[in-house]
Amino acid sequence: MTGPASGEDSLIARYFKPIATDPGAFGLDDDAAILAPTGDDVVVTTDAIVEGVHFLPDDPPDTVARKALRVNLSDLAAKGATCAGFVLTLALRSVDDAWLTAFARFLGEDAKLYGCPLLGGDTVSTPGPLTVSITAFGRVPVGKMVHRSGARPGDRVMVTGTIGDAALGLAMLKGKLAAGAPARAMLVERYRVPQPRNALAFAVRAHASASMDVSDGLAGDLAKLCAASRVSAMIEAPSIPKSPAAAELLVRGAVSLETLISGGDDYEILCAVPEAHADAFVNEAMQAGVAVSVIGTMIAGTGPPQFLDGQGREIRLSRLSYSHF
Amino acid sequence: MTGPASGEDSLIARYFKPIATDPGAFGLDDDAAILAPTGDDVVVTTDAIVEGVHFLPDDPPDTVARKALRVNLSDLAAKGATCAGFVLTLALRSVDDAWLTAFARFLGEDAKLYGCPLLGGDTVSTPGPLTVSITAFGRVPVGKMVHRSGARPGDRVMVTGTIGDAALGLAMLKGKLAAGAPARAMLVERYRVPQPRNALAFAVRAHASASMDVSDGLAGDLAKLCAASRVSAMIEAPSIPKSPAAAELLVRGAVSLETLISGGDDYEILCAVPEAHADAFVNEAMQAGVAVSVIGTMIAGTGPPQFLDGQGREIRLSRLSYSHF
Repeated sequence: MTGPASGEDSLIARYFKPIATDPGAFGLDDDAAILAPTGDDVVVTTDAIVEGVHFLPDDPPDTVARKALRVNLSDLAAKGATCAGFVLTLALRSVDDAWLTAFARFLGEDAKLYGCPLLGGDTVSTPGPLTVSITAFGRVPVGKMVHRSGARPGDRVMVTGTIGDAALGLAMLKGKLAAGAPARAMLVERYRVPQPRNALAFAVRAHASASMDVSDGLAGDLAKLCAASRVSAMIEAPSIPKSPAAAELLVRGAVSLETLISGGDDYEILCAVPEAHADAFVNEAMQAGVAVSVIGTMIAGTGPPQFLDGQGREIRLSRLSYSHF
Repeated sequence: MTGPASGEDSLIARYFKPIATDPGAFGLDDDAAILAPTGDDVVVTTDAIVEGVHFLPDDPPDTVARKALRVNLSDLAAKGATCAGFVLTLALRSVDDAWLTAFARFLGEDAKLYGCPLLGGDTVSTPGPLTVSITAFGRVPVGKMVHRSGARPGDRVMVTGTIGDAALGLAMLKGKLAAGAPARAMLVERYRVPQPRNALAFAVRAHASASMDVSDGLAGDLAKLCAASRVSAMIEAPSIPKSPAAAELLVRGAVSLETLISGGDDYEILCAVPEAHADAFVNEAMQAGVAVSVIGTMIAGTGPPQFLDGQGREIRLSRLSYSHF
């Protein structure tokens, strides 16, 4: 007899039970988890990452774990939600102890870091690529989730952090771009380990009229936010925040602006903030330790966002965003 | 320019927006969904199905859609929860219009049938097998989720429907077992399209001391429920409910009892019901249109459940349940 502990049960117990310390997880011993009521809306988001598509086969398990969770946390941050927990589905080709140990450990560390406990999960066998699906939960006061659709003409367009680093990091991992060792390390890290801006969730909720995270490229995601809000936008390209490494590659012509703003994997927050709230938002972001930049203004209209160069001329883009299909 | 509608956006809009009619889904136009507070606990469960592992490559899209949702609904039913909604992650090799149209249509029909609306989702590209991950939400009054761990010696062991059909259906699809056309059709349907017992959720919550759904085989899942409750069980094998097709195959020696009770994919509810509640539970189940059978009794002890034949002799099992690892 194999006894009550089947392969999957013991796999969960071995690796994930130690990090499932939230009371609603029931130690992963049950068939479901509980999110207790707080009177808030529960915000639900789901994102999967696939080996060879969203991360590379030789990316280390710690970065795979962190990326899988963080791409979801980034959605919660952009919606103005505080973290409440997540469930994990892991599709594995085989059971590799060293890989799973590292994956679970770093997943647990991130869960603690962001206050977003593991509540439950499922492990399934697959003959295909490793796939990590996460559904994450946040909370906002009833009706206070920040949508894509609330931007109005005149609102400032703001973005956190720097844009384009992850796309450059991926290009380097694929051997399509070169840079010095420190720049390369920074850009690769930006591709592998997003820095979701959950510290900004309260400020987003308090001040933004519309918000989303930048996952498929700034240009395309801004176009989506504009379409949902039925506005357009005028963006000053020089104001788009760039890391020193990205700025240098841009200046010496190794990459184009288009690569930076249509490449994706940034996981920064893109939001519209009414003029009257702009200073308060910037101040609160500073207090939260998150850099924000004003990159332009929402304008009336239904056309795609316009990107202007330093001389006020429109930059033509051949694509706005990255799509896997 | 590709415009704001990237491949993934238009894929979601084309196929899934029509079935995402719940207000909390925001027409799938946003990055997250909302579960509004009701004062209840939110019950969360997640299960994925993988082509070639949990369903067969030539299973039709309508049965894949229904199986993906129903294996999750079955967990909600077993926990005594009413349905509140679900999110979907679809990992696709390619975009096949006919397949996606049928998949979305039947998913939408099931969502309506079970009152469990689609709230959001993610579609990702994969070079691997088609994988459908669903996270489903239910509601129970605070603290009233039915666990695996509440069974006490003396409780009646009950199971819904019939056991073993799905395992036989799978064996037939694999060419390992034969039967007449009507029996084959019924058994294959039982493998492809589970019948989750959500109509029984209220009765489970009102009367069961412990409950789970049977997904990995009755014997193994009962062993898990016993282990969680720190009890054992005495099961009368002849009382285990069998369909006429399964009973006939068993009588003529084409399959063993072990195949029926360790094969998995039943998606029936297995629960423990205190003696004083047994009649009420059976009556309420009858009113809900769900057949339930008493198959034995919980007993003190920590050993695996014992299965007795018609003469009271213990049946030795070489395995209790199915594991993919």
